[in-house]
Amino acid sequence: MRLITFTVDGYSRVGAIVEENKVVDLNHAYQAQLQREGKYRYEQIAEAFVPSKMEAFLQGGNESIDIARKAVDFALGNQTSSEHKLVYSKNEVKVEAPLSKPGKMICVGHNYREHILEMGRELPSNPVVFAKFANTIVGPEDDIPHYPISEQLDYEAEFAFVVGSQARNVSEDDALDYVAGYTIVNDVTYRDIQRRTLQWLQGKAVEGSAPMGPWLVTSDELTDPSGLEIVLTVNGEERQRSNTRNLVFTVQKLVAFLSNLMTLEPGDIVLTGTPGGVGFARDPQVFLKDGDVVKIEVDNVGTLENKVALQKGVEA
Amino acid sequence: MRLITFTVDGYSRVGAIVEENKVVDLNHAYQAQLQREGKYRYEQIAEAFVPSKMEAFLQGGNESIDIARKAVDFALGNQTSSEHKLVYSKNEVKVEAPLSKPGKMICVGHNYREHILEMGRELPSNPVVFAKFANTIVGPEDDIPHYPISEQLDYEAEFAFVVGSQARNVSEDDALDYVAGYTIVNDVTYRDIQRRTLQWLQGKAVEGSAPMGPWLVTSDELTDPSGLEIVLTVNGEERQRSNTRNLVFTVQKLVAFLSNLMTLEPGDIVLTGTPGGVGFARDPQVFLKDGDVVKIEVDNVGTLENKVALQKGVEA
Repeated sequence: MRLITFTVDGYSRVGAIVEENKVVDLNHAYQAQLQREGKYRYEQIAEAFVPSKMEAFLQGGNESIDIARKAVDFALGNQTSSEHKLVYSKNEVKVEAPLSKPGKMICVGHNYREHILEMGRELPSNPVVFAKFANTIVGPEDDIPHYPISEQLDYEAEFAFVVGSQARNVSEDDALDYVAGYTIVNDVTYRDIQRRTLQWLQGKAVEGSAPMGPWLVTSDELTDPSGLEIVLTVNGEERQRSNTRNLVFTVQKLVAFLSNLMTLEPGDIVLTGTPGGVGFARDPQVFLKDGDVVKIEVDNVGTLENKVALQKGVEA
Repeated sequence: MRLITFTVDGYSRVGAIVEENKVVDLNHAYQAQLQREGKYRYEQIAEAFVPSKMEAFLQGGNESIDIARKAVDFALGNQTSSEHKLVYSKNEVKVEAPLSKPGKMICVGHNYREHILEMGRELPSNPVVFAKFANTIVGPEDDIPHYPISEQLDYEAEFAFVVGSQARNVSEDDALDYVAGYTIVNDVTYRDIQRRTLQWLQGKAVEGSAPMGPWLVTSDELTDPSGLEIVLTVNGEERQRSNTRNLVFTVQKLVAFLSNLMTLEPGDIVLTGTPGGVGFARDPQVFLKDGDVVKIEVDNVGTLENKVALQKGVEA
């Protein structure tokens, strides 16, 4: 499934994208199905298994995904069977970032093999990891805010995975069982702020610096996270291109590595790193400016496109 | 007030420590007061203003703290007025870390002036900031787990502040208005893991590596976060000693600096850095081992004491 978070009439809901441009409200779909089955407690059962917040939904694991998939089929065949609207056209809703409050956002640096080698570096023996916080998240229909605290706003195309069940000391062989699905994140970075101290966090943590989406492709549908082409363009001009087969630390290795340090929980998200070609590393350097359109495409996942919007009147 | 999170009979509650060894259950105290006032909706009103989870309680800001303070007075004078127990002896409950799920845990490095100068470094012009995640938090009555993935387990005494209201682009002059209170955190660090890449996160993010507590001293009681002596001992032997007047970046500067980058929210916690004397920097180096007792005292805040417990049978 392609899972989304969407808002409509001020409500935030979890949905599935079907037939390219339809959005099924999963919680309402399951409620309708339960009503049809004669269940008095349909609201409570639906809230337990198919809640309307993505982080809560993911806690239900494969059981909730299986229930949701059947509810989608029910909704498509019974669109008028509920007091609630079950199926929307995509342009009737706003698609938000799939996650809004992940417990952890873990980012990996220096992870594309060809880029490391072209820079004359050795392949690292351990992943470089750093953090972002949830305040950075914006959705696929939002702008990338550019706060005028730096002139060096830069993009980083990233293939990301979302944890689906609690993981501690998981082996590489079992790792994919702990992944709920995949999405795209632009790890927007204020380069001069990133580099003014040894630790990168401050240049990575600026409000709105993690456009995410457009959806979460579940891992039963995208079974192999390797071999996916990843391309980033700015105003149509290609700036980054690689393939997830070039990841030094694959999704499997990252689950094993991270879960050896800490407990990963449903809804945690890991950004797997960015290919060569960021604006800071180009000659001459080039940074994002007001109105630029940044588009990231990942095979079998989708396209995340956001426009840069200078935030005027914001005190630096 | 000295606010705590405590557990009793499997319930997690917010309380206040009074008269050294009494614990008042704030939510139940306020419920009892509301019942006395003849309010039918006492449970719902109490849940709205004095919820039983600390992060939610802090969202109520000074209004909730004022209500809680009056409820404490009511409870002490009317201990048998409710179906719930309002006042416990401290040894009847388990004191937990004041926060369990802060939205952000932000750590500051290299922040004690005398330690920077003694290392021959220049005073930095910007704070070094990095992250921990909520999975690191353990309470004042918990052990510090030592997972056998490293021999280099080290302590870092830290004075910490907790955000009390939403802060964005706040000035140093106004900064303390946005602070709910203060606590102590031991920023336990696996040194070799911290240093195997440029970014420190992986050595800072290990499960259970942030003992926190014993309570949150509210900022109406501790009005000046400067001039507080901070001392860490291991098995009674002094290892770190400084004073918060030596902070290069004070609480006020950190609120201003961080809120210029991101929105700080109630319940976010900032660890302000550690004085000289960590085990890694000693000659000879000395690391924590099973059974060691690490005690941190901060003037006007309290004492956080935890024992190191080697985790046997854990796969590395």
